[in-house]
Amino acid sequence: MTKNRTLFEEALSRNKASRETYRDSPYLRLTDDFRGSSKGTVSWQGRLIPGYPRIGRIFRLEQGLGQQFSGPFWVEEKIDGFNVRIFRAGDRILALSRGGYVCPFSTDRVPDFLDLGIFDEHPDLILCAELAGPENPYTEGGPSFVLEDVKLFVFDIMRFGHLGLLRQSETHELCERYALPTPRLYGRFEPAQWLEVRRIVEQLDVQRREGVVLKEDKPDGRRTKYVTAWSGIYDISVRAADTIELPGDFFTSRILRMALYLDETERELDANLELDLGRAFLRGLTESVQRFKREGRVYHDFRCRFRERENAEDLIAHLHTILGHTHVVQKRLEQEDGYWVLELEKEVPKLTGLLHQLFRGAALVD
Amino acid sequence: MTKNRTLFEEALSRNKASRETYRDSPYLRLTDDFRGSSKGTVSWQGRLIPGYPRIGRIFRLEQGLGQQFSGPFWVEEKIDGFNVRIFRAGDRILALSRGGYVCPFSTDRVPDFLDLGIFDEHPDLILCAELAGPENPYTEGGPSFVLEDVKLFVFDIMRFGHLGLLRQSETHELCERYALPTPRLYGRFEPAQWLEVRRIVEQLDVQRREGVVLKEDKPDGRRTKYVTAWSGIYDISVRAADTIELPGDFFTSRILRMALYLDETERELDANLELDLGRAFLRGLTESVQRFKREGRVYHDFRCRFRERENAEDLIAHLHTILGHTHVVQKRLEQEDGYWVLELEKEVPKLTGLLHQLFRGAALVD
Repeated sequence: MTKNRTLFEEALSRNKASRETYRDSPYLRLTDDFRGSSKGTVSWQGRLIPGYPRIGRIFRLEQGLGQQFSGPFWVEEKIDGFNVRIFRAGDRILALSRGGYVCPFSTDRVPDFLDLGIFDEHPDLILCAELAGPENPYTEGGPSFVLEDVKLFVFDIMRFGHLGLLRQSETHELCERYALPTPRLYGRFEPAQWLEVRRIVEQLDVQRREGVVLKEDKPDGRRTKYVTAWSGIYDISVRAADTIELPGDFFTSRILRMALYLDETERELDANLELDLGRAFLRGLTESVQRFKREGRVYHDFRCRFRERENAEDLIAHLHTILGHTHVVQKRLEQEDGYWVLELEKEVPKLTGLLHQLFRGAALVD
Repeated sequence: MTKNRTLFEEALSRNKASRETYRDSPYLRLTDDFRGSSKGTVSWQGRLIPGYPRIGRIFRLEQGLGQQFSGPFWVEEKIDGFNVRIFRAGDRILALSRGGYVCPFSTDRVPDFLDLGIFDEHPDLILCAELAGPENPYTEGGPSFVLEDVKLFVFDIMRFGHLGLLRQSETHELCERYALPTPRLYGRFEPAQWLEVRRIVEQLDVQRREGVVLKEDKPDGRRTKYVTAWSGIYDISVRAADTIELPGDFFTSRILRMALYLDETERELDANLELDLGRAFLRGLTESVQRFKREGRVYHDFRCRFRERENAEDLIAHLHTILGHTHVVQKRLEQEDGYWVLELEKEVPKLTGLLHQLFRGAALVD
């Protein structure tokens, strides 16, 4: 407790933490990595909820597995959604975003996917999960196997006040006992079995899935990830409209990944892949240009479902705070099939601004 | 003269200029824009050679022509090469690179393309030109209509000590009188004739040529440029191997240009274009990966022809100075059909370094 208080006091004094409030509860959030604690670490009424660790990515299985792991590791599917940490706060269950905000959407929906009984028996657990699917307020698109709404996938567990994640065996046991929804688990492998891991990833690629997370089977073991060629195309297609908002290497690093993936899987370049890549870039941007011409601005549509109206309103307020009032427009909030359906638009401000300039006939020096 | 001396003295004292030597001649070069003079401006034995002005780019003809120009403008073809300024220094003719170095390659080759008699009658002229073609020591590829070696295209003229370029009419006259090689000239248009300009650009696109430079027909008139969809694909294909060396927006800005071009020319997205774009990205990078696996480093091959051996040696020395000794390797320098043919390799150091890391199995956090 004292250590925790000291961490946040220092972080606050150095502008590395901020004070937040969820309904009536104040809490603290690291806005940056600080003294070995990662961005998104939260102090909830004096209790520490560590940030979910960032996971490095390997670009070669053959060399990467041996380099990253000294022994066996688990292979599980990587889910393309957004990361949440779920915990009990008094008589409520809350979900934190990666950055450490209480997320009104995830908090609302968690009970749809989890037997909350786990928190009665283990009130100090923090479930680390991915919420993934097309109807979410943060990310474009979602996994190819979640066709509507969202689904929850628990992939790690932490405990209050403890740095680090539970061992995989303990996590797997708890997930099984409480029937928590989890990503596909492919088993335990040795680094020398890289060809078997490659086969799994190649299967995922064919099925248009993202890739794998690899977790060393020992306390505080290392983690790494490796993705399919398809994931590169997919990322580019859903983010092409945001081209100029993103760091330039968002795109180039994905293409380099693809080139290395094709080499490692001994696949020849083929016209289908080339076509998919070119299309991924051009379609998104062309759509943005068309939208700009029609409506004078570029935005993305989001739609998500809430059990409670109040949470939808909290989400809008939250988005207004983090993205700015003018960039988030609520289009609709109505009951439909037992849910409150929220539809909103998020403006893509840099691209909107740039297209305004260009359509006025500006010249840019490059 | 005094003004010129003062400019460079101040620039030197602020690290905005550097002292260079070409053979026995010292000269000064602005390494940055300074007091209204652009980077690449040179003081040659007290005489000022202005830097060639940077030209902004429009992304829409319809709005851009009216916005940039208040009256008629000339349309000429844009040539994809590198910019040189050619001038007489005593009894020699020298060529400066855009950055303001005496370029040993261009200096060597200029007499192949120009009647130097122009400098006898007009010793104070500075010819601004593009040297373009596959056999040059700086840029990958070249225009689709220069199949070997290089060609010279004079497109502007300056005078010693005068800021600004000559009027188009004067430039056209001089080019004609001395039969200087020039880019295709399409004529003089009014901003309202944007559809005619579009037709010219669409023709160039079909012919796989880069685009147009537009020059207002008045003293110190504005200039702007507009390029074809093909030019975007081409740039990406020749620079894909350099992906991570380039600013990220090198690629994204080209794709945005393409999307706007397709919209303005009322062209639908088509599979050919999408395929070309995806291929442009993947082929270059895949080749780099293969080369790295074979040879442990990524590099580009260059080949160029010289009239004099000494100039080839000067070029190698120059490249060693600006790129570093380890990154430029001379492979061959031999006489062939009356020329000294130089072959060299330029390493792509960032990509080489990154691939070393990745092939050792490193994990990167993104």
